[in-house]
Amino acid sequence: MLRLDPGEGRIRTARSFEVWEGGGEYNVARGLRKTFGRRTTVVTALPRTELGALAEDLILAGGVDISNILWREADPIGRDARMGLNFTERGFGVRGALGVSDRARSAAAQLAPGEVDWDRLFDEVGVRWLHTGGIFAALSEETAATTLEAVRAAKRHGVVVSYDLNYRHSLWAAHPDPDAGRRVNREIAGLVDVLIGDEYAYASCLGLDAGPARTHPADPAPFDALVKRLTGELPNISIFAATMRDPLSASRNRWGAVAWSDGERAEVEAREIDILDRVGGGDGFAAGLIEGLIAGWDIHAAVRLGWAHGALAMTTPGDNAMTTAAEVRALADGGSAAAIR
Amino acid sequence: MLRLDPGEGRIRTARSFEVWEGGGEYNVARGLRKTFGRRTTVVTALPRTELGALAEDLILAGGVDISNILWREADPIGRDARMGLNFTERGFGVRGALGVSDRARSAAAQLAPGEVDWDRLFDEVGVRWLHTGGIFAALSEETAATTLEAVRAAKRHGVVVSYDLNYRHSLWAAHPDPDAGRRVNREIAGLVDVLIGDEYAYASCLGLDAGPARTHPADPAPFDALVKRLTGELPNISIFAATMRDPLSASRNRWGAVAWSDGERAEVEAREIDILDRVGGGDGFAAGLIEGLIAGWDIHAAVRLGWAHGALAMTTPGDNAMTTAAEVRALADGGSAAAIR
Amino acid sequence: MLRLDPGEGRIRTARSFEVWEGGGEYNVARGLRKTFGRRTTVVTALPRTELGALAEDLILAGGVDISNILWREADPIGRDARMGLNFTERGFGVRGALGVSDRARSAAAQLAPGEVDWDRLFDEVGVRWLHTGGIFAALSEETAATTLEAVRAAKRHGVVVSYDLNYRHSLWAAHPDPDAGRRVNREIAGLVDVLIGDEYAYASCLGLDAGPARTHPADPAPFDALVKRLTGELPNISIFAATMRDPLSASRNRWGAVAWSDGERAEVEAREIDILDRVGGGDGFAAGLIEGLIAGWDIHAAVRLGWAHGALAMTTPGDNAMTTAAEVRALADGGSAAAIR
Amino acid sequence: MLRLDPGEGRIRTARSFEVWEGGGEYNVARGLRKTFGRRTTVVTALPRTELGALAEDLILAGGVDISNILWREADPIGRDARMGLNFTERGFGVRGALGVSDRARSAAAQLAPGEVDWDRLFDEVGVRWLHTGGIFAALSEETAATTLEAVRAAKRHGVVVSYDLNYRHSLWAAHPDPDAGRRVNREIAGLVDVLIGDEYAYASCLGLDAGPARTHPADPAPFDALVKRLTGELPNISIFAATMRDPLSASRNRWGAVAWSDGERAEVEAREIDILDRVGGGDGFAAGLIEGLIAGWDIHAAVRLGWAHGALAMTTPGDNAMTTAAEVRALADGGSAAAIR
Amino acid sequence: MLRLDPGEGRIRTARSFEVWEGGGEYNVARGLRKTFGRRTTVVTALPRTELGALAEDLILAGGVDISNILWREADPIGRDARMGLNFTERGFGVRGALGVSDRARSAAAQLAPGEVDWDRLFDEVGVRWLHTGGIFAALSEETAATTLEAVRAAKRHGVVVSYDLNYRHSLWAAHPDPDAGRRVNREIAGLVDVLIGDEYAYASCLGLDAGPARTHPADPAPFDALVKRLTGELPNISIFAATMRDPLSASRNRWGAVAWSDGERAEVEAREIDILDRVGGGDGFAAGLIEGLIAGWDIHAAVRLGWAHGALAMTTPGDNAMTTAAEVRALADGGSAAAIR
Amino acid sequence: MLRLDPGEGRIRTARSFEVWEGGGEYNVARGLRKTFGRRTTVVTALPRTELGALAEDLILAGGVDISNILWREADPIGRDARMGLNFTERGFGVRGALGVSDRARSAAAQLAPGEVDWDRLFDEVGVRWLHTGGIFAALSEETAATTLEAVRAAKRHGVVVSYDLNYRHSLWAAHPDPDAGRRVNREIAGLVDVLIGDEYAYASCLGLDAGPARTHPADPAPFDALVKRLTGELPNISIFAATMRDPLSASRNRWGAVAWSDGERAEVEAREIDILDRVGGGDGFAAGLIEGLIAGWDIHAAVRLGWAHGALAMTTPGDNAMTTAAEVRALADGGSAAAIR
Repeated sequence: MLRLDPGEGRIRTARSFEVWEGGGEYNVARGLRKTFGRRTTVVTALPRTELGALAEDLILAGGVDISNILWREADPIGRDARMGLNFTERGFGVRGALGVSDRARSAAAQLAPGEVDWDRLFDEVGVRWLHTGGIFAALSEETAATTLEAVRAAKRHGVVVSYDLNYRHSLWAAHPDPDAGRRVNREIAGLVDVLIGDEYAYASCLGLDAGPARTHPADPAPFDALVKRLTGELPNISIFAATMRDPLSASRNRWGAVAWSDGERAEVEAREIDILDRVGGGDGFAAGLIEGLIAGWDIHAAVRLGWAHGALAMTTPGDNAMTTAAEVRALADGGSAAAIR
Repeated sequence: MLRLDPGEGRIRTARSFEVWEGGGEYNVARGLRKTFGRRTTVVTALPRTELGALAEDLILAGGVDISNILWREADPIGRDARMGLNFTERGFGVRGALGVSDRARSAAAQLAPGEVDWDRLFDEVGVRWLHTGGIFAALSEETAATTLEAVRAAKRHGVVVSYDLNYRHSLWAAHPDPDAGRRVNREIAGLVDVLIGDEYAYASCLGLDAGPARTHPADPAPFDALVKRLTGELPNISIFAATMRDPLSASRNRWGAVAWSDGERAEVEAREIDILDRVGGGDGFAAGLIEGLIAGWDIHAAVRLGWAHGALAMTTPGDNAMTTAAEVRALADGGSAAAIR
Repeated sequence: MLRLDPGEGRIRTARSFEVWEGGGEYNVARGLRKTFGRRTTVVTALPRTELGALAEDLILAGGVDISNILWREADPIGRDARMGLNFTERGFGVRGALGVSDRARSAAAQLAPGEVDWDRLFDEVGVRWLHTGGIFAALSEETAATTLEAVRAAKRHGVVVSYDLNYRHSLWAAHPDPDAGRRVNREIAGLVDVLIGDEYAYASCLGLDAGPARTHPADPAPFDALVKRLTGELPNISIFAATMRDPLSASRNRWGAVAWSDGERAEVEAREIDILDRVGGGDGFAAGLIEGLIAGWDIHAAVRLGWAHGALAMTTPGDNAMTTAAEVRALADGGSAAAIR
Repeated sequence: MLRLDPGEGRIRTARSFEVWEGGGEYNVARGLRKTFGRRTTVVTALPRTELGALAEDLILAGGVDISNILWREADPIGRDARMGLNFTERGFGVRGALGVSDRARSAAAQLAPGEVDWDRLFDEVGVRWLHTGGIFAALSEETAATTLEAVRAAKRHGVVVSYDLNYRHSLWAAHPDPDAGRRVNREIAGLVDVLIGDEYAYASCLGLDAGPARTHPADPAPFDALVKRLTGELPNISIFAATMRDPLSASRNRWGAVAWSDGERAEVEAREIDILDRVGGGDGFAAGLIEGLIAGWDIHAAVRLGWAHGALAMTTPGDNAMTTAAEVRALADGGSAAAIR
Repeated sequence: MLRLDPGEGRIRTARSFEVWEGGGEYNVARGLRKTFGRRTTVVTALPRTELGALAEDLILAGGVDISNILWREADPIGRDARMGLNFTERGFGVRGALGVSDRARSAAAQLAPGEVDWDRLFDEVGVRWLHTGGIFAALSEETAATTLEAVRAAKRHGVVVSYDLNYRHSLWAAHPDPDAGRRVNREIAGLVDVLIGDEYAYASCLGLDAGPARTHPADPAPFDALVKRLTGELPNISIFAATMRDPLSASRNRWGAVAWSDGERAEVEAREIDILDRVGGGDGFAAGLIEGLIAGWDIHAAVRLGWAHGALAMTTPGDNAMTTAAEVRALADGGSAAAIR
Repeated sequence: MLRLDPGEGRIRTARSFEVWEGGGEYNVARGLRKTFGRRTTVVTALPRTELGALAEDLILAGGVDISNILWREADPIGRDARMGLNFTERGFGVRGALGVSDRARSAAAQLAPGEVDWDRLFDEVGVRWLHTGGIFAALSEETAATTLEAVRAAKRHGVVVSYDLNYRHSLWAAHPDPDAGRRVNREIAGLVDVLIGDEYAYASCLGLDAGPARTHPADPAPFDALVKRLTGELPNISIFAATMRDPLSASRNRWGAVAWSDGERAEVEAREIDILDRVGGGDGFAAGLIEGLIAGWDIHAAVRLGWAHGALAMTTPGDNAMTTAAEVRALADGGSAAAIR
């Protein structure tokens, strides 16, 4: 997806946009590659247009392998296989970030079961981890089915699967099937190893009651309560993780994270941080958490890495972090923002 | 429509885009208003999103009345009523201008018959001139029908109608009905007063043979030949007009124009001009020509005004001219580019 | 007026400026139109130059009607009817915003009594509300007289009048007539319905003693005290309103607002907000307050709307808000800056 | 003076301006200093505002001595001592450069006789050359008188004086005294050593008949004819010089130069050159010519240097050249534009 | 190497630079990958600093494999292993492109024999073509030796080698060994299959007499004469190729190309083209020529492809082409710059 | 030195850089000149390249005299006399500022004893104050010796000398002589009048024990303790001064300052301030402190001036302040950031 960003201004009065690449799953793959040096690939579809070429150019700069992108022929006015677009602001102070998602009928939103040879990826190519998320699953009937196909193939090959619910009420509410959100997410949740999302996302996606409200916007207690309840219901899940965000203003958030790993709880308590561009904070968290888990770190260290990576991702424009593993580790370990020289 | 323009660079390697508003009919309305001071309105549909608001902001700056815009509710991912987008480069030297049109399923592309009260516009409001074109007609079955509805209503009220064929082969070729281009354009051409397009457009749209090829890229002879033939076939048409463009390079064109008015021929012979952004040259011509006709000038003066307005439109970025009636008239009258001081 | 803005830098070392349109009364008209959808017009004079055309272009984008602008012929060096200019910085942290106002002998500053047909505006056109302010009145003898003429005409037609004192000591101090500030403002204040300005402005403009100093920079008590005293003296005034600003730094202010409506007091307590560009906060407040009053809201809701609109106006560059009625209402109702998605 | 430049766009639709310093006399002083390494100073007045500070910042970067600038106190709205401004476009192709000069009542335009101690400059400080011009002289009665005062003082001290007529009809036409142009310029011309301006400027300024029209826009014959006639009338003048410009388009000019030195004629025949920003070409010529004369070169070499410096000044944005003496000499000697490496 | 580009301005007055990646060999590898879709790698050394990371980011976007980059530890002030930098202007009209090369002691300039396992590359990895050039060879004693080592290894494995002399007199003149240029280049020339460079480069690098001068700047006759003579002397070379450039101005060149393949001569006659940024034209030619040869095209088609790719590379900023194989082929086949739509 | 600044982004993903001039000693000279109006000169060496010309252009704009710059001939690849470069980020929130210093073998880094005629400067020219610092001294053996030479010459002529230790561990650690830092700094410290640096710098440079750690990052107690101890050991020093910085985040620091003057202690307690670009805060402090001392203010006022100047320097991009003496004094005296109007 291409993110068009009006910088310090607003979409409604913009005269120019910066362009970045983005998308929940991609952002995680990019973070693992560009920040942490893991080899990653992205499975998606792009139109064979100048915009598809631009997306490729940006993905290449992100270091993510492009050999699993499916290229679609495009017609002259974007009837069939568009490039997914996302016009999103940064927000400032009391003015929250706003955006327009324009990704219906994108090439990616039409990815259907049977088009990707998952067995080849998980077997021959040797992919060890599959990360996917709830926005992609919500785009169309096809993407829901494709997500399930991928997850099932991964489990068949013993590949670890992480799933970020990334719950957007409006998205599932607009789905042709009113029950689609619950149905699709329940099925996926019953298969994956790592489930990311807060108690509200869990409740909405799985058709549960979220329990008592938070006492403050970054209160992890309701999340903890729901995780305890889900532990028995979804024994396949070994890690439940969530970020806790209290938007004091668009420019300053309290930012924390919690995870449970086989009954053990790890937390980075919410701390006030400056935000340049909030987009990608959650994906940055997921990438850092997964890096920690792949590296065999304990859940406390992994959550700290995720928290720090997400925090750094929000100090630069665009959806993705522009940072190094060393910087992330230093922040995860409590380092200050003093200049290094 | 929003035009996203990568400036001196290319879409495929862009990191930012300037944004302008555009669209064939709109550009003509804007030129008549902003350059020549005529009151104009635009009949279209926009989505009620931040992008629709941006289009409104740009149209307002263009001085064009917005009270006839239909606002459509938008869903969260652009399934139903998108903002039409158009990513187009400027080209440079041996590198031609390239673009990606992304306007399928835009709110405008879904404008259907019965949604606009044309009688009110042509009667109560007192609109005196209707300008429409072939790109809008080609977008969907609905837009073809809506174009016809508008043209018929205009004729019912004695309103002058100009139609710019703006023929794009790829566009009609992608139409569900293979014969749509010929069928729709023939019907419209049988109704209008002013028909704009070169002999190739005439032939393609009306299902005719274009006659002998041009001897050089700006050769008006085949156009003249076809006009003579059409004069009898389409007696409703009082003005046939075309621009003649010889793209010596993307940065320099030979640019001319020809028109026939009730058998009288007027021409501005093609002359070498510098091009900053070619988009909108033809619309600029149409606006200048219509201005001349509305002002009651003879066809020679009207064509010169159209030629000059189109030439000036291509000296600035964006689809539209940033000029004044005085500048256009001075150029039409053969003025030099010497600084005025 | 054109605002030239050096962005994050300073005027004294600038190599480029962004340009916006501004001016106290205009900003209010624009906010009512662009944020709240009211039809508004601006009564001013502009030079017939490229700079006047630029101002028109910006005003058009603001949606404000331009048909009551008087166009002045300009000479080759700006002797007679200049475009008013305003070079103003944003400030940052401990560095306050600085500026250079260059509007003497602007076309607007020479607007004289008799040049505008106020009766036509208030009668035929049906204008229901007149907003004017103290900076315009201070520009010259003519503008003071013109302001009075407009206010008197408005009262004659039963049109509501709001007046923002916008007191700048230096401005009136530079006036040829040392007593002009007090004399002009007193006369205007004796006619209007809504008076905007804090106790210091009231005292200075009306020649009163401001009473005890504030105990902290956003302390409304002295304002309240002075309003109580003025209520009897100026029975024509039904609303007294002021913003309370504590500039903790140029980038962060405590921002509040107070108003009295026929003895009833409404307040938004000062709250810390981030500031991108402070210019236009007060005008944004005035526009929101007036919107609330026009919409028939009670004074509490109107003040909240004004406060929120002013706060949002300061989150974007330029003098004016780039926001929507929905965003303003959400903030007025206590909404957070969380991203909406 | 500050030059505000809308870059590739137009003033009337600008959203930002680049800022440069400029002014006929200053440009010559800057070229002599920054290109050719001569020590130069500028005698002018600036307001003590942030804009005056910006002008100083730019002049400092130009290397020109600032110790002879008179600083004026400024009032809050620019009533008395403004900063002179100049909004000027670059033009492109068939679109000529347009501008708005806004320098009336600038601090410089009010420079009056008696304010500058010319004797000190020409005696103690040891200034050897005075360059002044017709735009400054035309600004007001005071500047005309000040110019004369400076020229007379220079002659008293045996200092060489060059005067660039820089004739702008509109400027003198707007002068309070209709005969001012002829009267002032005649008096100055009777004193100076080097007179710059084409036959049209000579004729207009000196109240003569320009003789037969040019046969083509860069035809030097009428200039030659008038020089021959003036040689006897103005025996004080040892050098007559003019540039010959044929604006094929705003982006391409034929550019030549002619000079007469004590009866000897030197010419660079007009040659087609690319223009990025035409402003400052004439001043660049003057600086190069003066450099050649100061360096003791013959008139042929001096004219070539002037021609080359003017040509290079028009290849960069802003009023001034960004070049080196080596580049100018290479071009003057017929070098190509091949990359040097 | 990082290219820092002051855009339309000059280095000496720049306030900002765009940054691109570049370097003769790299540019060829990038063109083959990004334009033509060949898999390519770059063998070089970069410092482990933020600048090295920036170079990697740009190379990744170019699609070129980074696994053969050697990473060097860097000290705090750039004593040992710097990032090579190149500040180069674009030139405009009569103003030629100028630059500052700052690449001494860069990590790349210290690449020494024995550091790269060429046998692995040519054997295991299966590299089929080695392209190298004379600028790298000239940087230091080490790079000369490393170039020879690479070329010898390539020949040992039957890998095709192309060598672009890229002769810069100043570079070899500054070499510690005055005879280095001739000695090193002769040895390399005796080994390679494809030799790129004009007759002046051939003569200078091989210690020959260049023969009679060109009759015009793009005259291929002296090149042809020298090739005929070299054919016997250097039987290892199967292709001699050169571009012919006549810099009418920095913005417009006549651009042609000639090659000899086993006695057969192919030429694209020099044609006037517009230049945005001349840097990389020669590298673009080399990439297109090599693509043609790899694809098995005849020398006529290969030279046309090289000519067209080089021409397109100069229509965009930066050292590299931003184009597609389809565009290059269309231009090579004589297509016009008309917009495609 | 040229500072290349990626703005809000990062070096590793930059596509453009703003360029500023900088360098510890220069920044102090520039602050004294541009903020406070003192005449200052800079003694350094620059290469005769376009980059050297750019540095000169920036220094000229800073108002600092350039007549004591030594110009070095440069070779074609930067072997001998490079321009010192410094790529440094601004940092944001939890992300600290990072940079790459690329100044080895710069012309300045090779400045050797005997090249500058210090006696002329301190005697004939009449320089009254010499400011130098520890980064320059650390660049090479030559710069250490040159620093000592300058300091000794200054003392010989009774010129006041201030020395900012500017301790960078990595810099001295990379020095060929492991003991160089201690040896050189001790010798300098034994000669100077004003020593700037915190207790950690003092301890490291002078080979002492820093004493107990700070209790919080801006705790001045250990500094005070060390100063008391040094007072006896270094009787030549009359002023010890340090800034106290607590980097709460890269965007917000607590910023304070302490100085001792002949046993009297002055402090500005650390206060939270917003940071746009931290670079140059310490140099700004030094300039303000020196200005206070030159002006004969007491140590309390001088420290406040230094603190305020440093604070303002960090509110604008680039290494240097863009402020006025009036603004600095207002802030030093406790003024607020309210807009002045």
